[in-house]
Amino acid sequence: MKMYDLIVKKKRGGALTEEEIDWMIRAYTDGDVPDYQMSAMMMAICFVGMTDEETKDLTLAMAHSGDMLDLSAINGIKVDKHSTGGVGDKTSLVLAPLVASLGVPVAKMSGRGLGHTGGTIDKLESFTGFSTSLTPEQFIRNVNTIHIAIAGQTANLAPADKKLYALRDVTGTVDQMSLIASSIMSKKLASGADAIVLDVKTGDGAFMKKEADAIHLAEEMVSIGKLAGKDVSAVISDMDQPLGCAVGNALEVREAIDTLRNQGPADLRELVLVLGSHMVVKAGAADDLSLARTMLEESLSNGRAFEVFKEFVRAQGGDPNEAEHPELLPAARFQETVPAPGDGYVADIATEEIGKICLLLGGGRETKESRIDLSVGLVLCKKKGDAVRKGEPLAVIHANDEELLGQAAERLASAYTLTEMKPETIPLIKEVIS
Amino acid sequence: MKMYDLIVKKKRGGALTEEEIDWMIRAYTDGDVPDYQMSAMMMAICFVGMTDEETKDLTLAMAHSGDMLDLSAINGIKVDKHSTGGVGDKTSLVLAPLVASLGVPVAKMSGRGLGHTGGTIDKLESFTGFSTSLTPEQFIRNVNTIHIAIAGQTANLAPADKKLYALRDVTGTVDQMSLIASSIMSKKLASGADAIVLDVKTGDGAFMKKEADAIHLAEEMVSIGKLAGKDVSAVISDMDQPLGCAVGNALEVREAIDTLRNQGPADLRELVLVLGSHMVVKAGAADDLSLARTMLEESLSNGRAFEVFKEFVRAQGGDPNEAEHPELLPAARFQETVPAPGDGYVADIATEEIGKICLLLGGGRETKESRIDLSVGLVLCKKKGDAVRKGEPLAVIHANDEELLGQAAERLASAYTLTEMKPETIPLIKEVIS
Repeated sequence: MKMYDLIVKKKRGGALTEEEIDWMIRAYTDGDVPDYQMSAMMMAICFVGMTDEETKDLTLAMAHSGDMLDLSAINGIKVDKHSTGGVGDKTSLVLAPLVASLGVPVAKMSGRGLGHTGGTIDKLESFTGFSTSLTPEQFIRNVNTIHIAIAGQTANLAPADKKLYALRDVTGTVDQMSLIASSIMSKKLASGADAIVLDVKTGDGAFMKKEADAIHLAEEMVSIGKLAGKDVSAVISDMDQPLGCAVGNALEVREAIDTLRNQGPADLRELVLVLGSHMVVKAGAADDLSLARTMLEESLSNGRAFEVFKEFVRAQGGDPNEAEHPELLPAARFQETVPAPGDGYVADIATEEIGKICLLLGGGRETKESRIDLSVGLVLCKKKGDAVRKGEPLAVIHANDEELLGQAAERLASAYTLTEMKPETIPLIKEVIS
Repeated sequence: MKMYDLIVKKKRGGALTEEEIDWMIRAYTDGDVPDYQMSAMMMAICFVGMTDEETKDLTLAMAHSGDMLDLSAINGIKVDKHSTGGVGDKTSLVLAPLVASLGVPVAKMSGRGLGHTGGTIDKLESFTGFSTSLTPEQFIRNVNTIHIAIAGQTANLAPADKKLYALRDVTGTVDQMSLIASSIMSKKLASGADAIVLDVKTGDGAFMKKEADAIHLAEEMVSIGKLAGKDVSAVISDMDQPLGCAVGNALEVREAIDTLRNQGPADLRELVLVLGSHMVVKAGAADDLSLARTMLEESLSNGRAFEVFKEFVRAQGGDPNEAEHPELLPAARFQETVPAPGDGYVADIATEEIGKICLLLGGGRETKESRIDLSVGLVLCKKKGDAVRKGEPLAVIHANDEELLGQAAERLASAYTLTEMKPETIPLIKEVIS
C-alpha cells in the first residue's frame, strides 16, 4: 500500500477501507509514513470528511495502536465518563464516588490537565498524600472492594492518536468533527470500558462554541461507539458560564465536597445527577433513568456518597480528614472581592476569560512542564440571571501574588456583563444523544 | 508571521497577501517552515484555490528564491518558449535555430528530461562533442554573434519551486492549476526572458488530458505573465498522437533536421511555424503573425534555418557534418517493422503508451540517475486518419536489445486502433491565449 494513493483517493472524495486505514495508522505510528504525507491527508479529510464507517475504523486503528486495557478482572459492567472540558468542570470528583456508592464499578484512567485548571488527578492531589500511581493489582482490588479507583494514565494508550493530534495541532487540522470524535473515542475504547457516557459541552467556555457543532460531535462519537459495539450516550450541556461557582483546583475540590454533602451549586448537582443516571442505567444497577436518579439523590442525602469519597481518598493515600475539614486543603494567601459596578442582572459571563484568569493566577498549565498552584482560583458569587446591587460581590479571587491579584480583579470585573432586564434562562442540559 | 495562521486562513477560504506568500516561501526555502505544514497548505490550496494575484505573488516569490538571470548583455528582445511536454516533442530543436535565423536572439536554458525521452539537451548530445556547459560569457557571445545558444541549467533557478514540487509530488497536490502554472512560470521568470511563448499540450500524451484543463492552465500562466509585466502567449496544441513521427532522442534529431531542411512531418512543421510566428512578433522582428510566418517559411525554404542549426552545433562543440549526414548520428542495432493487422483507418494512437514503449527501450529516464540510450525509439509510419492495408508498416522500432524489441513490437501493435470509417480530423492548434 502507498500513502500517496490513499491521499489521492481521499482528495478525490473517496472513502478509505478498513485495511487502508489500519495500514495508514500502523505505518504512521511506526514512522514509515512521514508527517508531510499525513498532514496532507488530514487536510484532505478536513475538506472531504469521513464516513461513519471510516471514522469508526480510524478510531479502532488508533485505539489498537498501543495497549488495550483489560478490565475483565473487575466485576460488573464498567461505565466510563468523558467530558470535552470546560471552566469549573469538577463533575468527575462528585460523579465517580456518587456512582460508586450504588455499587457500580468506577475504574477511571485520568490525565493531568493542560489549560485553565488541572485535570481530575491534579485536583485530587489537593489531598495530602493522595496518589494516582496505583499498580494494576491495587487498581483492580480497590474497584472490587470500594467500587472506585482513579489512576494516572501509565499505560501506552492510543499512541497513534497522540502523534496524530500533535501533528493536527500545528497544521490547522484540529477542527474536523470526525477527527475530534475519533481522537476522543480511541482513548476511551483503549481504556477498556463496556459503556461510556459523554459530557459534550457547548458555549463560550467549551471547545465547541456552537451548539450545532457540539451535537454533531456527540452524534459522531455515539455513532463510533455503536459501530464499535459499545453502549454510548452523550449529554449536551451548557458551558456559556462556568459550571458551579469555583474555578481552581482546591477550590473546586471544596465545591465537589459540598455537592457530595448534598449542598453545592444547583447546576453542578443537576449535571452530576443526569450523567450519573445514565451511568447507573448502563451499568444495569437501575432499570430506568428516573429510578437511577432517585437512587443517586438518596445516596447524596443519606451521606453514602460522601462516605465513599472519603474511603476513596483514604484508599489512595490521602487524608480523609481534609475532606471532613476542607479548610485544611491548600488555600491562597490573598483574597479579594470584586464588587458589582452597578445594579442589574448578570446577562453574560465571559467564560473562556474566567478560565484564562485562573491560568493567570497559576491554577493551570500553559505547557506540559508548568507547575500548578493548587490553591489559587476564583469563586463566582453571581451567575447568569442573578440580580445584583452595586457593590455586592460578583466573585472572590484567591491568589498568592498581589500583582496578579490586581490584574485578575480587573479582568474579572470586565468578564461580567450586567443588564437592566432579567435575561432568559438557558437550560443546563440541552439534549441527550444515544 | 506564523505558518499555522496562514494555513488556517487559506483553509477558511481566505486569500494570502503578498507579504504572507513572500514570507512563507522564504521560510520554507530556508527550512524554517517544515514540510508537514507546507503540505497541509498545498492540500488546502487544492481545495480552496488561489486568486490570480496570489498565483502571481507565489510565482514571483519562487522566482526570486534563487538566481535571477540577467540577459541585459544580449542585444534585442529575448523571447523564451516553453512546452508542457508531450510524446515526440522535438519542437525546440527546430524552432530555436529557425527563429534565430531571423536575427531574433534565442538564449535558452534547458533541462534534462525525466520521462519517456530525454530533454532538448539530451537530444542535442546525439552530436559528437556537443556541450551545453557554456560559461556565461560564451553563452552571451554566441547569442550576440549567431543569435542562438542553449545552455544546461547551471544557475540556481527557483530553488523554492524545486523543493515545493518535490513535496507536492509525494503528497498528491500536483494537479492544482495555479500551483502548476506558478511552478512553470517561476522558472521562466527567473530565466530572464522579456517575453514567453507557451506550448500547452492537451490529449492522451500530455500532462493535461482534457482540453478544458489545458486552457485553464494556459490562462493561469498568461495571467501570471501579465501581472508580472511580461508579454506571454499560450498556444494550445494537440497531443492526442505523437508530434511528428519520431519518438526517441537521435531519431527525433533526424526528424528535426528533416524539418529544418524544409521537409519533415506536416504537424511538426505547422506547430513550429505557429509558435515561431508568435516569438518573432514578440521580438519585434515582424509586425504581424502572417508576415512572421512568411519570413519563417522563407528561412526554411532558402536553407538559412538549417545553416544556423549547423553553426549552432559547431559553436557548442558538435560536429555539423553529422547534421549534413544524419546517418552518422547514434543508431540502434535492431530495427523491426510492426505491420498493420488488417485494413482500415488509424482511429487512435495510445500516445502515453507510445512514450512508455520508448522508455522501455531505454530512451528515457525513469529516475534522475538513469542513463539514456540516445539511439533507440520508434518511428510511426501511420498517424491518425491515415488509411492502412493489412501488412503495411504501422511503425518501425529501433532497439539495442532483442527481448525489449519483441515486447515493444507487441505493445506498439496494441497501441494502434483501426476502424473501417475514416475518423474526423482533429486540429493541431486548438486555441491561442494571450
